[in-house]
Amino acid sequence: MRKIEVVQNILGANDSIAAQNQRLLDEHRIFALNIMSSPGAGKTSLILQTIAKLRSKLSIAVIEGDVASTIDAEKIKGHAAAVVQINTQNMPESCSLIANMIDRALKSLPLEDINLLLIENVGNLICPSEFALGEHKRVVISSLPEGDDKPIKYPMIFADADAVVINKMDFLPYVDFDIAAFRHAVEGLNPKVKFFEVSCKTGIGIEGWCSWLLTETQLNPHK
Amino acid sequence: MRKIEVVQNILGANDSIAAQNQRLLDEHRIFALNIMSSPGAGKTSLILQTIAKLRSKLSIAVIEGDVASTIDAEKIKGHAAAVVQINTQNMPESCSLIANMIDRALKSLPLEDINLLLIENVGNLICPSEFALGEHKRVVISSLPEGDDKPIKYPMIFADADAVVINKMDFLPYVDFDIAAFRHAVEGLNPKVKFFEVSCKTGIGIEGWCSWLLTETQLNPHK
Repeated sequence: MRKIEVVQNILGANDSIAAQNQRLLDEHRIFALNIMSSPGAGKTSLILQTIAKLRSKLSIAVIEGDVASTIDAEKIKGHAAAVVQINTQNMPESCSLIANMIDRALKSLPLEDINLLLIENVGNLICPSEFALGEHKRVVISSLPEGDDKPIKYPMIFADADAVVINKMDFLPYVDFDIAAFRHAVEGLNPKVKFFEVSCKTGIGIEGWCSWLLTETQLNPHK
Repeated sequence: MRKIEVVQNILGANDSIAAQNQRLLDEHRIFALNIMSSPGAGKTSLILQTIAKLRSKLSIAVIEGDVASTIDAEKIKGHAAAVVQINTQNMPESCSLIANMIDRALKSLPLEDINLLLIENVGNLICPSEFALGEHKRVVISSLPEGDDKPIKYPMIFADADAVVINKMDFLPYVDFDIAAFRHAVEGLNPKVKFFEVSCKTGIGIEGWCSWLLTETQLNPHK
């Protein structure tokens, strides 16, 4: 029983720090998005496309979560208003960002100057679904080469998503990926989810995704 | 401190069950491989290709680890000598197979009749590197569409691998993946690792992979 109790304590503590983070974001009228996916599905590419499209309308900061390295933060630097890299390798949770990592990151961001905070979680379809960070919305990216069975194999992360981005649509001719079956499986877990079919490489579908995100940011009741 | 102690207890207990599993496998002269990768990198496809090539020479059993569903076990059934599905969704560790799950699975396999046990871990580049299962060798599959930076972002799993399979080589014309840079990054973590460049779709490279695996199975000192 000891492990289960400890896990419950950790999740309880995480939820209360996540709620604090959200209050801080709300005080500063910042809309925060938690972006989750498998490794290599296109989180950083979607962030770069989003910044390119929305930087004239919003001031955007990014928190980059990775087990190790600063590769992603380097890619974002110079595009976003601010970027913080978190490395989870030697932390108690290495397979997901957790709320107290975001608490620390928020202390080093110029909160007064930000409208939109994009949080790139660690590449993983399991652990990130367990930890609230203080975000207002959650998005899961699935990419065509991964296959269309991911919602069936990793249901929790899809069940809690506000939006699902289907990325690498330019691979459609080269892979067996049944988009209708994929969407149907996600809708079975999560009937209200929004879908976006995009290619971060060609730019297809980015307009629709950014227009949703801009509306959500502006609709944020704390604005 | 309490969480850290508990984590150490769990890892310690896991190692001793993993050692028991390996003794049981050795008594039955079974060579066991722990197969790890991101979701959708091709673990099940590699297992199907391996069985097709080696079933005339070896009796092969499979343990399928997934958060949820029996999709992969269904694909394997009828090809392997035996298959066991483990679902981790409601277990204390959902992001990896752990040694006591393998202990239970071994009890339901016809150990007398098996030469090679292929263990498909949960799709994840982080948690599975922490838990020994009792395997003799570890293989990590990386697929071209994931990008060549995975060893830099997820170093632990590559550092402990005996072999790295680069899958989906048929995607080479469509992706930016620098194979030399990828191999160099893995070798920096793990100079002794073996590489195999394959396409489970076209069959390229499967011969070399299976020939290594056959040799390893036959060299197993407990044979």
